[in-house]
Amino acid sequence: MRIAIRDYITEKDPDIIYQIVKDTGYFSEDELIMARELAISALAKPGEYLFFVAEDNLKAAGYACYGKIPCSIGSFELYWIAVLKGYQHNGIGRALINSVESAVRSCGGKKLFVSTSSTDRYAPTRAFYEDCAYTQAAVLKDYFAPGDHEVIYEKPL
Amino acid sequence: MRIAIRDYITEKDPDIIYQIVKDTGYFSEDELIMARELAISALAKPGEYLFFVAEDNLKAAGYACYGKIPCSIGSFELYWIAVLKGYQHNGIGRALINSVESAVRSCGGKKLFVSTSSTDRYAPTRAFYEDCAYTQAAVLKDYFAPGDHEVIYEKPL
Repeated sequence: MRIAIRDYITEKDPDIIYQIVKDTGYFSEDELIMARELAISALAKPGEYLFFVAEDNLKAAGYACYGKIPCSIGSFELYWIAVLKGYQHNGIGRALINSVESAVRSCGGKKLFVSTSSTDRYAPTRAFYEDCAYTQAAVLKDYFAPGDHEVIYEKPL
Repeated sequence: MRIAIRDYITEKDPDIIYQIVKDTGYFSEDELIMARELAISALAKPGEYLFFVAEDNLKAAGYACYGKIPCSIGSFELYWIAVLKGYQHNGIGRALINSVESAVRSCGGKKLFVSTSSTDRYAPTRAFYEDCAYTQAAVLKDYFAPGDHEVIYEKPL
């Protein structure tokens, strides 16, 4: 594997991102569409949603999408991070999150937030954020559905 | 005063909404623009952002903007609520929030979330939500800026 991380997206990426997110098996069709639409809107109107794409020999293996929280000073949110199943457990997720954190720091960001679900299915996701030194900032009960809470993590940068 | 509440917006409303939000004196220019853009995007692509507008003899006096939280089941968020200064303390805010709650209930919504700031400036806003039976679900420290936390309220419907 020869992983390179680029800090931009191209017109091919919305469909590639859809496929990466689908491949993880973690998301609903609605969420896949939303992930693609974020990329489409970022191509149309750059600035609000920013991307890193990890490639193995020019093949996209994972990506992260983040952005400044509107009307905040120094707060950013990691909206999406996903790695193709066949490429997981190789440090690509961690490399992507490191890229996001560095980029946020260099534009004066002080805090990065990321949300996920409280369900068992997302235990590996929560473990990943905790391994990356994110701490639980809040839990919004029944946010996604009855019994499916939103867990909000934060990391000071 | 003869207040009527309509559940739709027209092409004139984005500018009217900008003026209402500006008149409150609570929001930055960035936020005014964002409030207007939400209305523009709702006219272009109905469904994601929903509105109620309170009118006194056909003059808009306040509005509320809410929507289903994407990829959730039964969770909604109140994104904006604002009443012209000269019309405040007349129950218009409460009438608007009641309209939102009824609409959310009728499409099967179980929970309404709303966020505001922890600063002294927003004490009347927090008091308003608390009067309307919203309870604090979480506080995200330094979310808007250092020392300016996000207070997230929720109300089961």
